[in-house]
Amino acid sequence: MSVGEPIPIVGGTGALGFGLALRFAAAGREVVIGSRDAGRAEEAAAKVQSRVPEATVTGLANSDAALLGSIVLLTVPFRAQSENLTNLGFVLEAGQILVDATAPLAAAISGKATRLLGVPQGSAAEQAQEMVPDGVSVVSALHTVSATKLRELDVPLDEDVLVTGDSKEDKRRVAELIGVISGLRPVNAGSLEAARFVEALTPLLISVNIRNKSHAGVKLTNLPDNLW
Amino acid sequence: MSVGEPIPIVGGTGALGFGLALRFAAAGREVVIGSRDAGRAEEAAAKVQSRVPEATVTGLANSDAALLGSIVLLTVPFRAQSENLTNLGFVLEAGQILVDATAPLAAAISGKATRLLGVPQGSAAEQAQEMVPDGVSVVSALHTVSATKLRELDVPLDEDVLVTGDSKEDKRRVAELIGVISGLRPVNAGSLEAARFVEALTPLLISVNIRNKSHAGVKLTNLPDNLW
Repeated sequence: MSVGEPIPIVGGTGALGFGLALRFAAAGREVVIGSRDAGRAEEAAAKVQSRVPEATVTGLANSDAALLGSIVLLTVPFRAQSENLTNLGFVLEAGQILVDATAPLAAAISGKATRLLGVPQGSAAEQAQEMVPDGVSVVSALHTVSATKLRELDVPLDEDVLVTGDSKEDKRRVAELIGVISGLRPVNAGSLEAARFVEALTPLLISVNIRNKSHAGVKLTNLPDNLW
Repeated sequence: MSVGEPIPIVGGTGALGFGLALRFAAAGREVVIGSRDAGRAEEAAAKVQSRVPEATVTGLANSDAALLGSIVLLTVPFRAQSENLTNLGFVLEAGQILVDATAPLAAAISGKATRLLGVPQGSAAEQAQEMVPDGVSVVSALHTVSATKLRELDVPLDEDVLVTGDSKEDKRRVAELIGVISGLRPVNAGSLEAARFVEALTPLLISVNIRNKSHAGVKLTNLPDNLW
């Protein structure tokens, strides 16, 4: 039993996407896990179902999944972002929002996950905005949420999600969606241009996590209660 | 009455430097405010004295100030960083630590404070490391602490300071110094190369602060108690 429209997660078999699928399903939202391989997406959906028996969750090929919701999450490694965006270009339609969670880690070229690649457009999110069809709005978010913490469904979250994008209304809609997951506070962190600063938090947190064997997240202090 | 060696703050008449001077003085540490103009440094020292009557605080020209402690704070705008480093190059000596708090905001070239300039060395901190005399170690820190919050001596702080640098021991010493200010938790955020990620937090926070009329800081979640 779930409410609201489905949430397609392109790359939902990956660590971040799967963790988000679990949390959204546990929050009573219908989730559609996308994968390059529909069979693997179905397997991941079955895993979500076994952890969250009341979930409404299905697994589909990415392109089929992306049709099913007005807000589509993209949670793939940077190495695969461009290929996925090319494929999504054939199915996404004006009015849809693509939530990009990509960090351009040097790991994409077998470098370190504590280093960031330079992206010609300025950030992975701006690359995404360049590649999606006209009228599709890219909102950047979810770079600092630990996949491990998301999977620990019995452990409450308590951290922020920095949201950037060029449409305030689209950011607000994404913030509303993120707010469905208890313990995640979405914060408006500026225009899509500022996504580069947020993407840089991923290698920073990876570095901190390696040092401390932790799964750190980010919280901004001294913010007012009413953020949106 | 103060304990420990003096803390020179080059650029201590600026907002961040002055706020730090107040907090260190209030914590019982001797502070030496540096400024291009010794007279302005003395004025700032007098202001600290009036807010913190028990303070041991003096004002000197930057180059004289920088001689007086083994850990020298550099809190100048990016526009003035290079000039200050050139001048400090004549006085800093091997074994000293320079704590660089510079963020290369585009405001340095009359651009926006929500944009970051590309620095050839990768970050303002790495530019500093290139410019200081051999044997001087640059540690990057204090980019996310609000000058306004520092000045509110009666309001407790509760946020993190991300510290980067290539010497773990030097980072530890800087962390110890920062920890003198109650409510600031230093976190080891990696090598000096990672300073670029931390410097990017300044324009990000400025953007958030403009939107929310706030003085946000940063806190990492899910870290162990024993960080150093």
